[in-house]
Amino acid sequence: MKVPEKILTILREEKNFLIATHINPDGDAIGSALALSIALESMGKKTSVYSRDPVPGFYRFMPGHKRFTSSLKNALKTDPVLILLDCNSPERAAIDRYEFRCPVIIDHHETERDFGDVRWVDRAAAATGLMIFYLIKSMGIKFTKDMATNLYTAISVDTGTFRYSNTNPGVLRASAELIESGAKPNLIADYLYESWDRRRFDLLMMTLNTLEIQNRIAIMHITSDMFRKTRTKPEDTENFSNFPRIINSVKISAVFREIGKGVWKASLRSKGDVNVAKIAELYDGGGHKNAAGFKIKADLESARKALLKAYKKINDK
Amino acid sequence: MKVPEKILTILREEKNFLIATHINPDGDAIGSALALSIALESMGKKTSVYSRDPVPGFYRFMPGHKRFTSSLKNALKTDPVLILLDCNSPERAAIDRYEFRCPVIIDHHETERDFGDVRWVDRAAAATGLMIFYLIKSMGIKFTKDMATNLYTAISVDTGTFRYSNTNPGVLRASAELIESGAKPNLIADYLYESWDRRRFDLLMMTLNTLEIQNRIAIMHITSDMFRKTRTKPEDTENFSNFPRIINSVKISAVFREIGKGVWKASLRSKGDVNVAKIAELYDGGGHKNAAGFKIKADLESARKALLKAYKKINDK
Repeated sequence: MKVPEKILTILREEKNFLIATHINPDGDAIGSALALSIALESMGKKTSVYSRDPVPGFYRFMPGHKRFTSSLKNALKTDPVLILLDCNSPERAAIDRYEFRCPVIIDHHETERDFGDVRWVDRAAAATGLMIFYLIKSMGIKFTKDMATNLYTAISVDTGTFRYSNTNPGVLRASAELIESGAKPNLIADYLYESWDRRRFDLLMMTLNTLEIQNRIAIMHITSDMFRKTRTKPEDTENFSNFPRIINSVKISAVFREIGKGVWKASLRSKGDVNVAKIAELYDGGGHKNAAGFKIKADLESARKALLKAYKKINDK
Repeated sequence: MKVPEKILTILREEKNFLIATHINPDGDAIGSALALSIALESMGKKTSVYSRDPVPGFYRFMPGHKRFTSSLKNALKTDPVLILLDCNSPERAAIDRYEFRCPVIIDHHETERDFGDVRWVDRAAAATGLMIFYLIKSMGIKFTKDMATNLYTAISVDTGTFRYSNTNPGVLRASAELIESGAKPNLIADYLYESWDRRRFDLLMMTLNTLEIQNRIAIMHITSDMFRKTRTKPEDTENFSNFPRIINSVKISAVFREIGKGVWKASLRSKGDVNVAKIAELYDGGGHKNAAGFKIKADLESARKALLKAYKKINDK
């Protein structure tokens, strides 16, 4: 993976950085931001790490997660260079009210917007964490255990710990280096897959109990009431959409989550060549081939039908 | 990993081989045997591949799985060299009634007994498949897609697809090479983890809905009625007891399965240092530290209490 020379130059020459990532940050967003922050500070730079939303509880094993702030106040005082990670538009990070000097974009998502002075968007990259891996290497910085743990986690989350189709030799070799630098594969896997709290598990069970399968599409939903009953939050639903994939006939697995009265956020996961990003784009959403999302204002039944129709549409093309 | 020179010499000089593996073969046993058979035959050698038990249905995606035979009759006619894989005693393979010329042992399990002319037992190896990977490489044989798929599957099964503590840089780098030779990580993961039929999923949901947690022990049950309703069989419950492990507070996860009127088979899984074999032994069952089982004649409520009491007993020791 070739890191753009211009990014390396900016990182070397500038002093203050605002590292921002998308709303509802996932493991790739968090790990990439933390590893880059730790790396830059090891060079004597100043960094702020911003996310509108807090780091979800189950990612709080990631070293340095307390660097995250949801306030831009202090950061903006230093007139920092913006580094936008794991997304490529200011709206996705909820920072579109501000002006930034020399925005640098580092992302691997398919849906592109035109923003930033330097854009490094590599759709072929399995994770933004992998891009940061090569970036840190190219800067000649030695990986510490904390950087390695963050990047290994980032890559794990976006490859399903090497189970998705984006798993390739480069991903495994980079991960091998990260283990050599101190990442612990089994501990990270335990944190990611065996550390749910009971309430989250109860919400999963409620959600799975709503499962219906139609035309090889598994559809589940989560109402506000279900969140209330289990005292859970939207962030607790991460990965829920993956579960029905264990059924061999399922090609797409979708969760509709109620985000307002009559407004639903759909999370889509697909197997193999089914491109759910194309479905998401039909409703102004976005994502990757096998993991995407969109919002829809409709009652649940109509939202469900819209998804089935969209699948038919992309299939007919 | 250093492959013993003596094994390479035998493989080069001999013509006929009987590749045998343990009873109830798992993915590592099957993949190692098939890859070695394909490799040796590519050199013009003759091989028979033996297992007492058939290849389980969910492993029948593995290329060449039809090479397996449960009869030794034809193989023995050629006076073959025995290569015993993924176990190291003839009893484990149910071949102890026969005499073999120059038995070669290739295994990563703890040494059980002294058998074989050449023993290559490497407890540190994550999988026998990894040993076969180095063996084939050392022979100078180019990996075909079929060999690669078998070895990648073998390694996946024994490392939980890179989630267990035996995952290390060498495992990932070997797997990277296997991808380059044609193994498809996502297809293999799909076959291993996402190929359940709907009925099995429905039974899992019914089972999970019975979950109760007491003193960090998750207990579920499956009645004969649930099998009837979902038209499933006991073998469909493999791995069910693992699911509640995703809850952080759970130390032991147990499934009681009804095997007769008022008779239950308990499957136990534990995390970390909790030894469920000790619990099983209290009821004349057995197993390993983190996976064990026992039978009990009682009503469900008493069976449950018996388990909780047994846990208290081994804890008090």
